[in-house]
Amino acid sequence: MPRKFLVPTVAALSVAVTTAAFSGGHGSPEEQVIGARNALMTLYGFNSGILGGMARGNVPYDAESAIAAAENLAAAASMDQMHFWVPGTDNVAMEGKTRALPAIWETPDDYAAKNQDLADAAAALVATAGDGVEAVGAGMGQVGAACSACHKAYRGPRI
Amino acid sequence: MPRKFLVPTVAALSVAVTTAAFSGGHGSPEEQVIGARNALMTLYGFNSGILGGMARGNVPYDAESAIAAAENLAAAASMDQMHFWVPGTDNVAMEGKTRALPAIWETPDDYAAKNQDLADAAAALVATAGDGVEAVGAGMGQVGAACSACHKAYRGPRI
Repeated sequence: MPRKFLVPTVAALSVAVTTAAFSGGHGSPEEQVIGARNALMTLYGFNSGILGGMARGNVPYDAESAIAAAENLAAAASMDQMHFWVPGTDNVAMEGKTRALPAIWETPDDYAAKNQDLADAAAALVATAGDGVEAVGAGMGQVGAACSACHKAYRGPRI
Repeated sequence: MPRKFLVPTVAALSVAVTTAAFSGGHGSPEEQVIGARNALMTLYGFNSGILGGMARGNVPYDAESAIAAAENLAAAASMDQMHFWVPGTDNVAMEGKTRALPAIWETPDDYAAKNQDLADAAAALVATAGDGVEAVGAGMGQVGAACSACHKAYRGPRI
């Protein structure tokens, strides 16, 4: 299993859920966990959007900007996932509040591998983002493939 | 200026705002930038909440969980800030949509220093989070001080 997807023990999960309630965030502990996941996905999308815009030629390529976005995407994708996937926070238990399919918890090793694919693609893009718009396009192809593979398997319908 | 707060050039900012429009996110480019900032703050809060809950003794201390939260907080706080602070996204220009005061753009070096204080406090906590609940409490004191200093100077009223 990739190091960064530490499937938490039940004890650790209890800690996560309970402590989340003291974070000062909004909603139930489960809603706060979902909010944190959504925040992570927002950062994936924001940084991917900057890079994708360059790759599609919608804006001038800028090396410094591309590298910054790639670094942030890699940092987000490399976060330890242990607190993000608390049991009871799928789209059946939390209907209308998340698109996370129960399959994530049924095949956690595969989920972890798919997340690692994104982390690897982002890390590769950090190394090449300064090499020009074609390099960004090639790297974003790998990032996009990782996004799609995970969404296809583990993301439910829009809510 | 701390390395990670790269005050963007006007050209880079144009890139950021324009590309954000192609990210597939919701709202205007400026709203997407604000959404990304809010996502970052959500991740600060979520991970700080886990650590703060342990420090206050509300839940049993768990070393693995504490380290994971500290690592994620450090990763978030160390992100390159260049795309997050686009001019025109303060709480005057975007009234009711953000709490970011114009002072951020008026004294960017001080803002950057305060952000670096958080990154430094989080990095220190990564090193000590496994040492027990008292270490987490001490480390969270530094994290909380960094949060408060920045909010006092640069965060406007609730919206």
